[in-house]
Amino acid sequence: MKPYVHGYSEKESSRLADQAGTLTELLHGDIAYPSGSRVLEAGCGVGAQTITLSRSSPDARFDCMDISAVSLNAARQMTANQQLSNVAFRQGDIYHLPYHPGSFDHVFVCFVLEHLSDPLKALTGLRQVVKPGGTLTVIEGDHGSYYCHPRSRAADRAVQCLVEIQANAGGDALIGRRLYPLLSEAGYADVSVSPRMVYVDASRPALVDGFTRKTFTAMVEGVRDQALDMGLIDRKTWDQGITDLYRTTQTDGTFCYTFFKGIGIRP
Amino acid sequence: MKPYVHGYSEKESSRLADQAGTLTELLHGDIAYPSGSRVLEAGCGVGAQTITLSRSSPDARFDCMDISAVSLNAARQMTANQQLSNVAFRQGDIYHLPYHPGSFDHVFVCFVLEHLSDPLKALTGLRQVVKPGGTLTVIEGDHGSYYCHPRSRAADRAVQCLVEIQANAGGDALIGRRLYPLLSEAGYADVSVSPRMVYVDASRPALVDGFTRKTFTAMVEGVRDQALDMGLIDRKTWDQGITDLYRTTQTDGTFCYTFFKGIGIRP
Repeated sequence: MKPYVHGYSEKESSRLADQAGTLTELLHGDIAYPSGSRVLEAGCGVGAQTITLSRSSPDARFDCMDISAVSLNAARQMTANQQLSNVAFRQGDIYHLPYHPGSFDHVFVCFVLEHLSDPLKALTGLRQVVKPGGTLTVIEGDHGSYYCHPRSRAADRAVQCLVEIQANAGGDALIGRRLYPLLSEAGYADVSVSPRMVYVDASRPALVDGFTRKTFTAMVEGVRDQALDMGLIDRKTWDQGITDLYRTTQTDGTFCYTFFKGIGIRP
Repeated sequence: MKPYVHGYSEKESSRLADQAGTLTELLHGDIAYPSGSRVLEAGCGVGAQTITLSRSSPDARFDCMDISAVSLNAARQMTANQQLSNVAFRQGDIYHLPYHPGSFDHVFVCFVLEHLSDPLKALTGLRQVVKPGGTLTVIEGDHGSYYCHPRSRAADRAVQCLVEIQANAGGDALIGRRLYPLLSEAGYADVSVSPRMVYVDASRPALVDGFTRKTFTAMVEGVRDQALDMGLIDRKTWDQGITDLYRTTQTDGTFCYTFFKGIGIRP
C-alpha cells in the first residue's frame, strides 16, 4: 500500500469535512439514487462524501469500502454520530473488489482515482460489479486548473510540489482532465463529463474561507514537510507561496479551481 | 496606437466570426437589453459580437465604437449584409470617449481590455458615459486557464508565446481573473463576475471543431511569425506545440479554457 499523500491526521479529517461542506451543492447537487438501489462507494476514506450521499438518497443502501482500517473506523464513528442508517462499511482493495459481479445498481468514486497508479484497472474492475444499465459516477479535481490573482510564481511552485508528490506516490493530481478518456477506455458507455469550476472573489466570502483558505491552501500546507524533505522547494519559496495563496483571499484577490464529474453507464 | 496582437487579416476576421458563433450561448445567452435603451459597444472591432447583441436586443439601439477605421469598415459591411438596423458605428479612442457623460443606459466591452495597457483608465472613463444605475458588462478570456490532455510542454510553451506577445504589446492575456478587482477599483457597484468555462471532449464535436480547432488553436497559430521573429520559441518547439494542440481533438483528447463575464453598476 502506497502512502496516502494527504495523510491520516485529525487536521486532515477536519479539512476533508470543510471541503465536503463547501462543495456539496457544486459536486453532489445533481446526485440522487433511487429508492431501494444498492450503491458502492469505493474509496470512502473517512466518510466525508458518505454523509452527503446518505442524506441526499435516504432510501438507497450504501456499501462503503476503503483500504484503510484507520479511515474506516473514523467513517464508522462519523456515521454513528450522524445517525446514518443506510450505510455499511467494509475494508477492501479497489483492485480486488470483495463483491460478486453485478452486485450494485450504481458505483460512486470521489477523490480516489487521483491517488491510484492504475486508475484504468480500478475503473475496469468497478464496471464488473455494476449491473448492466447501472452507472459509475467519478469526481476528481485537477491541480493544473488552479490559478489566482495576484499571480505568484512561489504559489505556483508550492502547488506544483503537491502535483509532484502525488506523482511520486504513483498518483496523478491532474486526473480531472482525463476522466473522459479513462471512462471510455474502461468500457463505460454514454460517458459524460462536466466541469465544476470554483471561482472565488471577495463577493463570495463563504468560498474565500471555505475553499481558498480551508480547502485548497490547507491541502497545500499539508504537504510542507514532504515537499521540503524531498527537496522539491526551498523553505523561503514555500513560505512565500503559502503567504501568496492566502494573499488571494484579500478583497482584490481571486482564486480558481475546477473539479470534474464523469458519469458512464455499464453496457 | 499599439498593434492589435491578432492582426487585421481576412483569416482573422473569419476566426473571430467562428469564435463568436461557437460561444454565443455561453457568453451572451443571458444578455438582453430593454427596448429603447441606448447601449455603447466599446471596441467593437469587426463587429463579431455586434451581430449577437443586435439580434438578442432588437429594440435597443447600439452605438459601436472602435479605434480602427479598417475594422469599422468591415463591421459596417457585415451589418449591411446582415440587415441590422439598430446599430451605428463611430471611430473613437476608448481612453478619450467621444460621448457626453451619462450618454448611455448600458456599456458592453468584449475581448478589448486584454489589449489595453491601462484597462483601469478605460473602465473609469466608460463609467462616466453610463447613466447612474446603468450597467457595464465586460467579457474577457484568460489564457492561463488553458489546459489539455494529452499534456504537452510544447503546446504550453506556444500558448505562453501568445501571453508574452500580448504583454509585450502592453496588454494582459491573463486579464479574466482580474475582472472583479478591476471593476471594483474603477468605481462600479455590485460587481459580479461569473466564469464561463469551455470544456471540450469527443462527445462535444461542435466544440472540438468550433473552439479547440478554429478558435483557440487558430488564434495561437496566428502569432507564429511574431513568436519566431521575437525569438520566444524555436521553430521545432512551435511546430510540435501546434501539432499537440490539434492532437487534443482526437477521440481521447480534452481541452479546457475559461472566459469571465463581469457586470457592474454605475453608482
